Amino acid sequence: MSERAFNFSAGPGVLPEEVLLELKEEVPVFKSIGTSVIEISHRSPTYTEIAEAARAHLRTLLGLGEDWHILFLQGGASMQFHQIPLNFLPRGGSADYLDTGAWSAKAVKEAAFFGTGKIAASSKADNYNHIPSPDTWSLDPNAAYLHYTSNNTIFGTQFSFEPNASVPLVCDASSDFLSHPIDVDRYGLIYAGAQKNIGPAGVTVVLIKESFLQGRVQPLPTMLDYGTHTAKLFNTPPVFAVYLVEKVLRWLIGKGGIPGIQTINAAKAKTLYDRIDANDFYRGTVEPDSRSKMNVTFRLPSEELEATFIKEAQEEGLQALKGHRSVGGIRASIYNACPPEAVAALVGYMNAFEQKHG
Amino acid sequence: MSERAFNFSAGPGVLPEEVLLELKEEVPVFKSIGTSVIEISHRSPTYTEIAEAARAHLRTLLGLGEDWHILFLQGGASMQFHQIPLNFLPRGGSADYLDTGAWSAKAVKEAAFFGTGKIAASSKADNYNHIPSPDTWSLDPNAAYLHYTSNNTIFGTQFSFEPNASVPLVCDASSDFLSHPIDVDRYGLIYAGAQKNIGPAGVTVVLIKESFLQGRVQPLPTMLDYGTHTAKLFNTPPVFAVYLVEKVLRWLIGKGGIPGIQTINAAKAKTLYDRIDANDFYRGTVEPDSRSKMNVTFRLPSEELEATFIKEAQEEGLQALKGHRSVGGIRASIYNACPPEAVAALVGYMNAFEQKHG
Repeated sequence: MSERAFNFSAGPGVLPEEVLLELKEEVPVFKSIGTSVIEISHRSPTYTEIAEAARAHLRTLLGLGEDWHILFLQGGASMQFHQIPLNFLPRGGSADYLDTGAWSAKAVKEAAFFGTGKIAASSKADNYNHIPSPDTWSLDPNAAYLHYTSNNTIFGTQFSFEPNASVPLVCDASSDFLSHPIDVDRYGLIYAGAQKNIGPAGVTVVLIKESFLQGRVQPLPTMLDYGTHTAKLFNTPPVFAVYLVEKVLRWLIGKGGIPGIQTINAAKAKTLYDRIDANDFYRGTVEPDSRSKMNVTFRLPSEELEATFIKEAQEEGLQALKGHRSVGGIRASIYNACPPEAVAALVGYMNAFEQKHG
Repeated sequence: MSERAFNFSAGPGVLPEEVLLELKEEVPVFKSIGTSVIEISHRSPTYTEIAEAARAHLRTLLGLGEDWHILFLQGGASMQFHQIPLNFLPRGGSADYLDTGAWSAKAVKEAAFFGTGKIAASSKADNYNHIPSPDTWSLDPNAAYLHYTSNNTIFGTQFSFEPNASVPLVCDASSDFLSHPIDVDRYGLIYAGAQKNIGPAGVTVVLIKESFLQGRVQPLPTMLDYGTHTAKLFNTPPVFAVYLVEKVLRWLIGKGGIPGIQTINAAKAKTLYDRIDANDFYRGTVEPDSRSKMNVTFRLPSEELEATFIKEAQEEGLQALKGHRSVGGIRASIYNACPPEAVAALVGYMNAFEQKHG
């Protein structure tokens, strides 16, 4: 087996090595069932136990009561951008959206098929380098919901607070899900593509409060009606992805749950931002109050140096550090499963790189 | 490692053991890339190569020209039931559907959101125990398309021919995809949930002819517009599922492609149906001309014997033989990846069971 690199991919992102070793052990035969989990019916006792365990972990981690449905859907956040207004935007009505990055912008665009997606606040004019302060928001008390993206993978910003609104919150939590507590009482729906913080690509965790679900538009196409999936296991779920998510959630509980990982993540982020702020060689791209603890974006003195930084990092086993094209520079994604050793190695590399090229 | 059982699951179904052993070897590190494939960007060279290889295999296997798009979508066949009329049924127009089982019935239901799904033929009155003969079909020359399900997992029937129609065919090929040749010129769109014949749950292969794509309704919600996905890699695909599909397709080419597997499958099916027909102890549920080479359904003299058959089979390492509740009895799913040894073992067990209980 070759050595594991330090993987800073923005997504699909790094998984805990323990999870992968457990998977390796369980292929081609899981425990004593005679097959792998990839090859069994989604109505089999084995899959049912795995999916129920994953749901139980989520209830434990987030403190979700029985009034919350937990779904494992497909299509990623991009499908939710459509499915949410389809279900919850009364035809011709309106919903509020906070426009804090590329994903928010994609989400609000889909609302227009059913009604109006009102942009209640935006940092677009500043290339999304901050989260707009709540005192600048223009909220509509008649909105069907207020949608926001809790962390912006591309621009490296993150809400350091949860919005207050008189309407239910809907949150795209894809890139910081289970990295901080959620005050679930404020929300109607929370969704997260698994491939950043909780598993592989191919499954979207959707949490829906029963009272919010009850208000959905009817009738709806069967597959896109959330009620189809809250009522029963309607169609074949992405079995492998749920199986891996269960492992990651179990790993997370072993790390002390959200309080445990929050402490680890805070230390990782502080280490990296402290290094960035140590002098002017590296420059953060985001206003300090809006800095993400998941995706750390920064620039070097020139694009040439940035290209060299990425290339030499790769040679040192520090992978996937290239920033998104809309920001440029460097992006280190340090999700839950990114070990502190990876951040330490990156900071060591940054120091050495500055010595050599600074 | 525990022993592999003979797995007759209707889906998610058995995968080639070679594929699973390759997977095992490639976790937690794929080749020399430093991570598993599950943890890399869908825009990375490694994933791009895998997805392109999978597409190339499909072109080879089916003889698809460059006028065919090959998509790896999510949501299974159930999402396609909605997405097809959304894209291709002119609002208020009509399309023809052949009603040959539970999946066909679910497909036609979704057409009603946009226009009329006309049932051109149905075997529902006979509990779907046959494929209606073409001379009984009532086809509409103005239909947007003719939809059919090439194999019916639940009822154990399969088309032994490809429909002739003056309009483009749309085919749900989920449960017999790549088990027989397809005359692609007749089709506008062919789709298959991977979890029966070509991979794990979580990816749907969708083949669309460019000329058919051009006729779609506009505008459409971004994620559900096939054109979004033919234009570029729009959002995160189910990376792991595509990675495994590539392996299965490569395995299939190694078996001699479709002609090779067709010979193997014909022998497997003949062995099993010959045993069923040998006397009256076992009774096939389907009219002989409509028998599926993928899902073989049969009954025993009593429900008590059926329950015993399933229980004792499980103890002998012959798994997942229980028929669907709407048919009852026994169902042996013998997809491409089901080895001939599994069918031989099943027939041996059937003989011994008859000796003991007959």
